[in-house]
Amino acid sequence: MPRVSEAHLAARREQIIEAATRCFARNGFHQTSMQDVIREAGLSVGAFYRYFSSKAELIKAIAEEKVGSILATIDHLLLQEPVPPLLTVFAEVLAQVDAHLTENGPVRIAVQAWGEAAHDPALAEVVGGIYARIRRSAVALAARARDAGQLPPDADPDAVGAVIFGLIQGYVLQRVLIGRLDRATYLAGIEGFTSR
Amino acid sequence: MPRVSEAHLAARREQIIEAATRCFARNGFHQTSMQDVIREAGLSVGAFYRYFSSKAELIKAIAEEKVGSILATIDHLLLQEPVPPLLTVFAEVLAQVDAHLTENGPVRIAVQAWGEAAHDPALAEVVGGIYARIRRSAVALAARARDAGQLPPDADPDAVGAVIFGLIQGYVLQRVLIGRLDRATYLAGIEGFTSR
Repeated sequence: MPRVSEAHLAARREQIIEAATRCFARNGFHQTSMQDVIREAGLSVGAFYRYFSSKAELIKAIAEEKVGSILATIDHLLLQEPVPPLLTVFAEVLAQVDAHLTENGPVRIAVQAWGEAAHDPALAEVVGGIYARIRRSAVALAARARDAGQLPPDADPDAVGAVIFGLIQGYVLQRVLIGRLDRATYLAGIEGFTSR
Repeated sequence: MPRVSEAHLAARREQIIEAATRCFARNGFHQTSMQDVIREAGLSVGAFYRYFSSKAELIKAIAEEKVGSILATIDHLLLQEPVPPLLTVFAEVLAQVDAHLTENGPVRIAVQAWGEAAHDPALAEVVGGIYARIRRSAVALAARARDAGQLPPDADPDAVGAVIFGLIQGYVLQRVLIGRLDRATYLAGIEGFTSR
């Protein structure tokens, strides 16, 4: 058997994750079988199981990978010096959400994962861990915004960070579940609500 | 066959909805069979099917009934004259969320329904309709808060209403998925974030 390069392994893994994301977004976690994912990925059963041995593992991998870009955006903004206005941060993060809000895209998968996590302790741990990390980034952002004079000096970064994160989640949910909401309107709402 | 009173029919229907809510919260929509719900409700198969003919109907009934108390809170606050401070409204709404955040309670069911709605067009219509209604209430609240001088005169109620609703959804999700967040902290965050 020929040696398989790291790059090849990573590409195959990615191919499976993309196929599973499409299947899950289309039919949900439960109505999707491993066989469906294998067919969608165009792999043999043997090749497939070298990468993932269960649906739970696949869901975990998707949950971890697919929030990557939003995490990267937040982290990137946190690293900027000086910290941008909070509204700019929201504009950039929500643009990332919109960019991933395609029919079979990862944002819909994320909302599904929230639902699963509400009754599945194993997935709840994965999802909880990911979101705790994003919330920590939001808390760090709040601390820097406060230090830059964008928030009152006595604002609690833990509290404001949770609210910043909540505003992002609320946008995701309304986009996925209700529609009839655009980014400019939501940003105007944040601006109107915060300039009281 | 004796005539069955309206009250009796309503009580039976409620009994089934409560049983289904417990089953769904415990095991999720998909791992719950109609047989599970019938057993949990302690009814005969014949009696059960007089009320609900499918799981989709049950989920729809739960989705519609279980947001009732939060809707009632928001509507109640909208009817108050003069409109209370927005922070008071949040405090009351989030208290309702916390009151329903029990292990097998309706808030967890709501998060599950969000996940299902992300890939099930029929449920998406039900859930979307319910949340569009809550958002309308939030928009009405924003309009009255603006008229009472709590928001800038040029604040767009549609935009601020979406943000108010988003903040509530964000609280629900963080409570269900991450924990380590209490109501007082979130309210302090809203206050800190809005007094910039």
